Amino acid sequence: MTQRMIIPVWINGVPEASVPVSDRGLAYGDGVFETIRISAGQPTLAALHWSRLQCSCERLNIPLDLDLLKGEIGRFLWEQSTTTAILKIIITRGSGGRGYNPEGCSRPTRCLSLHPLPVRTPDPAFSGARVMRCETRLGRSVLAGMKHLNRLEQVLARAEWQGDDWDEGVVCDFDGYLIEGTMSNLFVVTTSGCLLTPDLSGCGVAGVCRQFIQRQSAKWGLTVNIGLISAALDDLNDLNNVAEVFLCNSVNGVWPVVQLGEQLWDIGDTTLKIRDCLLEELNA
Amino acid sequence: MTQRMIIPVWINGVPEASVPVSDRGLAYGDGVFETIRISAGQPTLAALHWSRLQCSCERLNIPLDLDLLKGEIGRFLWEQSTTTAILKIIITRGSGGRGYNPEGCSRPTRCLSLHPLPVRTPDPAFSGARVMRCETRLGRSVLAGMKHLNRLEQVLARAEWQGDDWDEGVVCDFDGYLIEGTMSNLFVVTTSGCLLTPDLSGCGVAGVCRQFIQRQSAKWGLTVNIGLISAALDDLNDLNNVAEVFLCNSVNGVWPVVQLGEQLWDIGDTTLKIRDCLLEELNA
Repeated sequence: MTQRMIIPVWINGVPEASVPVSDRGLAYGDGVFETIRISAGQPTLAALHWSRLQCSCERLNIPLDLDLLKGEIGRFLWEQSTTTAILKIIITRGSGGRGYNPEGCSRPTRCLSLHPLPVRTPDPAFSGARVMRCETRLGRSVLAGMKHLNRLEQVLARAEWQGDDWDEGVVCDFDGYLIEGTMSNLFVVTTSGCLLTPDLSGCGVAGVCRQFIQRQSAKWGLTVNIGLISAALDDLNDLNNVAEVFLCNSVNGVWPVVQLGEQLWDIGDTTLKIRDCLLEELNA
Repeated sequence: MTQRMIIPVWINGVPEASVPVSDRGLAYGDGVFETIRISAGQPTLAALHWSRLQCSCERLNIPLDLDLLKGEIGRFLWEQSTTTAILKIIITRGSGGRGYNPEGCSRPTRCLSLHPLPVRTPDPAFSGARVMRCETRLGRSVLAGMKHLNRLEQVLARAEWQGDDWDEGVVCDFDGYLIEGTMSNLFVVTTSGCLLTPDLSGCGVAGVCRQFIQRQSAKWGLTVNIGLISAALDDLNDLNNVAEVFLCNSVNGVWPVVQLGEQLWDIGDTTLKIRDCLLEELNA
């Protein structure tokens, strides 16, 4: 039985659940979003989320008032008495006339909504994730890296499997290199003990959890390399093989990959160590 | 002075001007749109618009009831007593939970809105269009051809000029080939008297007006070739040069290009002939 839940929504600081058809977020996907895990009533990985949000808005020339937004989020979470949840923030360029020209659209729309933490049994963070190889390809884009609202490629990739057939899917670019999961970033632990994650300068979403791992890696005694990862995931080069594979995002933390298409891996120690650090961060 | 106009809007067949934040059109740009010129109270180039809409919805697996939509459009136009206007149709996958998975989203949202016909003085259809070369590049995409709601690339390209500096801008792909205008398709008339328009199988929007020209060309004694057009637009090949350039869309019809960046052309006879056919069609 499907239960329809009442999701708390605020728009521009007040309880309201809809946006005008003239909003450019609807018309053109002209905006960005963040999905933040709320723990003990507080956003986790907050600094990284704020910085990505601000950076993406700057790239799109959307005049975001981050302090105003943070104030609204504080009130929103407090009024909902939230302890554990997922906060979704959508920032659009606001309403505008018909036509792509953003000139004169200087009042962004701020949407906040609160969602239950997704629960999976068994939890792939512990049991390991079974991951599909999606057919949908990602193309090079001037929008690379941003978590913008143009997400049809992800929708099409996610539509490639139904129900619980797989926990997640990975997508390649048109040259056949692995880029990311539909909702997560990809890391490989090599036999030489380094981390390797795909270059996202051409396409993909530069996730907050990926950034966290990049920043913490030195503390863990790990080097993170950014480079090309062939879809086959057999040999990275002559000396280096794939020892472990994991996916990460700021909702679920780290999912060790135990199956990618036909390939199988065990859950490795490096992945476990990073998973546990993330769990600590996300359940702070 | 800017005048705020009241734009008539219907959602799912009733007067209503907003959509829930949970609509996937807002969340992911998960939908398509059409912009149709209304003349004498009727949609122009209607069959081509319906066929593109249906085809795009099929590609995205959005279950559109086209007969229902057409009925709504008929009532909408009749109730607004519209004679000349622009009808914008947005079809989204409807509301869904948080996450890219479209499973279970089977009730599309249908938005109709009516806008004034854009007026430019002088009208580039007669005076010729001055066209900018945009820096924004289009990447290869699985979404090529569709008029979907993921239009941030067009927004960024359109933001490259302000006010009346230019009438339109053209964008190239990452290999440097001309693809289209920000809101129009591109045609070249060659010195050998053929039409040439860019291949849109990798990126771009396959416009209804472009389709009309392709279908009518035989009647006009013209061959339409689809191929690569280098950004320089100097020589197409050893024997063939660019004699005329024009842009087209289903709102404005044909705009002869008299300036593209630094390059200048006269308005040619072939362009005039096609422009007049389109004007007849759009003012039917």
